[in-house]
Amino acid sequence: MGMFYLALVHFPVLNRRGETIASAITSIDLHDLGRLARTYEIPCCYVVTPLLDQQNLAKRLMKHWIEGPATNIHPNRAEALKKLKVVDTIQDAIADITATEGKKPQCWATSARKQNKEKTLTFQRASYIIRASENSILLLLGTAWGLAEEAINVCDKIVEPIRANSSFNHLSVRCAAAIIVDRLLGENKTC
Amino acid sequence: MGMFYLALVHFPVLNRRGETIASAITSIDLHDLGRLARTYEIPCCYVVTPLLDQQNLAKRLMKHWIEGPATNIHPNRAEALKKLKVVDTIQDAIADITATEGKKPQCWATSARKQNKEKTLTFQRASYIIRASENSILLLLGTAWGLAEEAINVCDKIVEPIRANSSFNHLSVRCAAAIIVDRLLGENKTC
Repeated sequence: MGMFYLALVHFPVLNRRGETIASAITSIDLHDLGRLARTYEIPCCYVVTPLLDQQNLAKRLMKHWIEGPATNIHPNRAEALKKLKVVDTIQDAIADITATEGKKPQCWATSARKQNKEKTLTFQRASYIIRASENSILLLLGTAWGLAEEAINVCDKIVEPIRANSSFNHLSVRCAAAIIVDRLLGENKTC
Repeated sequence: MGMFYLALVHFPVLNRRGETIASAITSIDLHDLGRLARTYEIPCCYVVTPLLDQQNLAKRLMKHWIEGPATNIHPNRAEALKKLKVVDTIQDAIADITATEGKKPQCWATSARKQNKEKTLTFQRASYIIRASENSILLLLGTAWGLAEEAINVCDKIVEPIRANSSFNHLSVRCAAAIIVDRLLGENKTC
């Protein structure tokens, strides 16, 4: 069975006007994604940003919790933040997994909007593939207003939206990530 | 069918030493819980805190997004934050629902730790009750290190932990709330 990886993508993503941007790091996202990855036994969550100052911010935050005075007070948080790895690009995350696993992972996008139907996987199908496939999978989570088309286009598959038929579908990336991971890997998934 | 309500509880909750405290408001929790409530069509999420300065902080934040300059830039966020209602105590949330519905709601706790087995509901059972019951249900979510025993004790039922058998179970209240709500109300729940 292949491994399942996450990437929290800050570039290329959309702003509220639909333009492609590099978004800023949100420190609480790093905590929440690290805790989620540790809880669901995901080997690594990549933090993707090409901006050096944002990379440094993420690394400083991680260092504070992993090596700094917070280690003794919150040892659990150190365990969670060790799951994060800062990389420049989505391609670098793919290359890192390829180096670890000896095989290129499949890359899957997530989106709150309905996308190319032929490439879209239902949660049930996606969950089955994760368990059955020998390939590792890298799931991309878009910050800001979601993944830009150029990120979605390089993906092999797209996981269907949460609440695709709702009149309102604006979860935070933290909450969306939690729901998606639980639907794909959670213990109740096979109910 | 009764309605399903949430309460984000800041008192009585535990600190990391297991003492009962009133926790501080985390502004991003208010955003995430409002967005979650709106996305899953939950009528109201109560923000429970007896501390006046914390109530004022929550109200100021809500006003900024609901009535302030942010309304035009982020109209979705106004819709989400309108789902929040600040109250002093869990009892006040129960009284408010009773006044709205004409009937006292059941009160359910959540916990990352296994609790009294006889009062514990599996997610599957809890989800069935929500759909079948004529009573409304108020689900309590604990901030900080979780609900204090005095809050759990007043509840009719306790929903089983997420990842009860994991070696690590430290999700943020935002992510835990999202997973719990999705397991109870989500469109994939009946897979």
